[in-house]
Amino acid sequence: MASATPDTVTTDGVRAALRCLRQRGPLVHCITNVVVAGFTANVLLAVGASPAMVDDEDEAAGFARVADGLLINLGTLSGRRIAAMHVAADAATGLTPWVLDPVGAGALPVRTSLARELIERRPTVLRGNASEVLGVAAQHGQPAGQDRRGRGVDSGTSSDTAVDAAVSLAGRHGCVVAVSGATDVITDGQRLVLVLGGSPLMTAVTGVGCALGALVAAMLPVTGSPLVAATAATALLDAAGTRAAAGDPGPGTFAVRLLDELGTLDADTVLATVSVETAAAGAPR
Amino acid sequence: MASATPDTVTTDGVRAALRCLRQRGPLVHCITNVVVAGFTANVLLAVGASPAMVDDEDEAAGFARVADGLLINLGTLSGRRIAAMHVAADAATGLTPWVLDPVGAGALPVRTSLARELIERRPTVLRGNASEVLGVAAQHGQPAGQDRRGRGVDSGTSSDTAVDAAVSLAGRHGCVVAVSGATDVITDGQRLVLVLGGSPLMTAVTGVGCALGALVAAMLPVTGSPLVAATAATALLDAAGTRAAAGDPGPGTFAVRLLDELGTLDADTVLATVSVETAAAGAPR
Amino acid sequence: MASATPDTVTTDGVRAALRCLRQRGPLVHCITNVVVAGFTANVLLAVGASPAMVDDEDEAAGFARVADGLLINLGTLSGRRIAAMHVAADAATGLTPWVLDPVGAGALPVRTSLARELIERRPTVLRGNASEVLGVAAQHGQPAGQDRRGRGVDSGTSSDTAVDAAVSLAGRHGCVVAVSGATDVITDGQRLVLVLGGSPLMTAVTGVGCALGALVAAMLPVTGSPLVAATAATALLDAAGTRAAAGDPGPGTFAVRLLDELGTLDADTVLATVSVETAAAGAPR
Repeated sequence: MASATPDTVTTDGVRAALRCLRQRGPLVHCITNVVVAGFTANVLLAVGASPAMVDDEDEAAGFARVADGLLINLGTLSGRRIAAMHVAADAATGLTPWVLDPVGAGALPVRTSLARELIERRPTVLRGNASEVLGVAAQHGQPAGQDRRGRGVDSGTSSDTAVDAAVSLAGRHGCVVAVSGATDVITDGQRLVLVLGGSPLMTAVTGVGCALGALVAAMLPVTGSPLVAATAATALLDAAGTRAAAGDPGPGTFAVRLLDELGTLDADTVLATVSVETAAAGAPR
Repeated sequence: MASATPDTVTTDGVRAALRCLRQRGPLVHCITNVVVAGFTANVLLAVGASPAMVDDEDEAAGFARVADGLLINLGTLSGRRIAAMHVAADAATGLTPWVLDPVGAGALPVRTSLARELIERRPTVLRGNASEVLGVAAQHGQPAGQDRRGRGVDSGTSSDTAVDAAVSLAGRHGCVVAVSGATDVITDGQRLVLVLGGSPLMTAVTGVGCALGALVAAMLPVTGSPLVAATAATALLDAAGTRAAAGDPGPGTFAVRLLDELGTLDADTVLATVSVETAAAGAPR
Repeated sequence: MASATPDTVTTDGVRAALRCLRQRGPLVHCITNVVVAGFTANVLLAVGASPAMVDDEDEAAGFARVADGLLINLGTLSGRRIAAMHVAADAATGLTPWVLDPVGAGALPVRTSLARELIERRPTVLRGNASEVLGVAAQHGQPAGQDRRGRGVDSGTSSDTAVDAAVSLAGRHGCVVAVSGATDVITDGQRLVLVLGGSPLMTAVTGVGCALGALVAAMLPVTGSPLVAATAATALLDAAGTRAAAGDPGPGTFAVRLLDELGTLDADTVLATVSVETAAAGAPR
């Protein structure tokens, strides 16, 4: 990625956003899956945010209007939770910034279709791994097929392969797209931000990717720029992951340390631990 | 709180209840939210109780009748779980002591209404934070409104502000009301018990308040006095929190230590760690 | 159990299966309960498998066909999840090996009936504690009653009492039956395998038994023998439990260490830590 250079403007914005997060303590409305709900809440609490898991159809619209940020995560669907997603997305649009995390899109037809419906509601940020972003981005003519390689929630696909799809999605839907992987790629359709950091152990604990979606939703009310918010959240989690992985602990200890790091990391340490680079979206990489 | 004095009678009752808990190993039927279900089960197992998360409408009534204690927690509602709450409350009344934890009442209209319906079924103990207790207690003429300050599950409100509401609720519904906060306040409408202890870290881990509701449900079958049961459960969790917070660990480590402490704490250590005081409900504080 | 002798054939098979697991990284489709979903996913990730919690009726059949193994666990039922269980079992039969974990059968009538319906679909392995296996095995003429002793999810019953029922079930349904307890008993109706190891702390953490069901589902695609798969999964979890319990930690620390051990244990260490013995099913014990 020879053309990527350190971007001090973005770095300064990220630093400012990280500094504001704990002070602001945003209320984050989460409609998320049952596997990671507890871990997601603990990640948000660790960084000083207030999680509220409100996923009932009768409650979700009203709560999306008073929350500071909203997360809609497609893991473990149900009719009730799908209905809550629709009313919350409608209530949030134009009022509360929100994140769509299309867990399993590209691998599971029901989720691919749902993700494509929800992205029409203009989420502020779409966050997924490469196979999920590719699944959402595929042509409408292309059926939302069952893809064995996508494997639902983990992705063997490098984030690099989804960059073009991410840029295209961001431009078409006016949102920021964040592709998680060994290198995290974030784009608003014009610029690319690359975050290098984190640890392979982050894929050995369930819910780390889902927690990133929640952290983005916590960052959005703290800064006016969705690109900065997604970058700051990614840098924060990657820095916590890098530090928690020191000494190569087992996955149980790593998960505990990850929360500990999120509870204490300051903005300067985050930016001293991970690398943030930017490039124009069309530039050769 | 000048008029509060150590109450050796209550302290002896609390000590006796704590001593019985592990030996008795009560079966606790939990209808609780998906965010904290795992942590709640682990808290109950740590103290020697047997948790059973039975939240299906077709199973809840029968199980509420054979369990030693029942918890009904309103977090993450669904039509199915609401139906289970109603049939379980009906089955338990007069047979199995039960705890109502009105998570989000006062902040979310659906939950406020549901909490007010369920309290008519005469729970043995109502446990919540100040904003939840105020939400349940508000006049029926007052609509169950959306309160941004209540914020759903965490409360910036001091437990002190809810004492009058708690005393009034306890008197009106013949139950014990436990208000969680930096100082925990427990009342049967006649007496106030204050428990001082715990740690601010208890609000940095999801489900600690919900786990207190479960611990009260575990204590109820161990002692004839709901006031003693709620006090003993509160003292036990606060003592574990105080000890787990030693050295100011991060939130991940704190949660692990909290379970470790609950696994070993004895009654004498609990009462040496926290302070339990009583006063008449109308006395100046 | 005087007639039991070390069975080097089985031990070699177990060793080979354990060696293949991390390399193969099987995709395990889990329909499991909300209490243990996160812990189950973390256990599978720790051993190198890919968990996918897909429990919606519209997704479960398609996913069961592409997964390497399937777990159906009856904890915390709902109409939606029951429907997913039926379509997944139908889709898996003859294509994807699957495990039935009848949580609460014998204690809860709804689950006993459901377990008896699902075992007719010919699971590859049935895994439960003694009271659950006895509950599934009871005569059809005998009503699926509410049994206070079964207590839903934990069992005071020794695995020894369920051996005859396990052998009978295995023979009648052509499956392997694994009965968890202080001594784990696994049978294909012809042979008995006994695994000795583990720690009482494994019953002080929620979801350890449920995680064993998931580990069996991960092992099934790795070896052609369901008896070897169930034995290998049991030996792996027991060895991790034995090692994690060193020094008698509290239950919070134990759970963290259990995941750490699962993340590093190799086949030789597993078989040096636990004892695996076999006998003919009818032999005196």
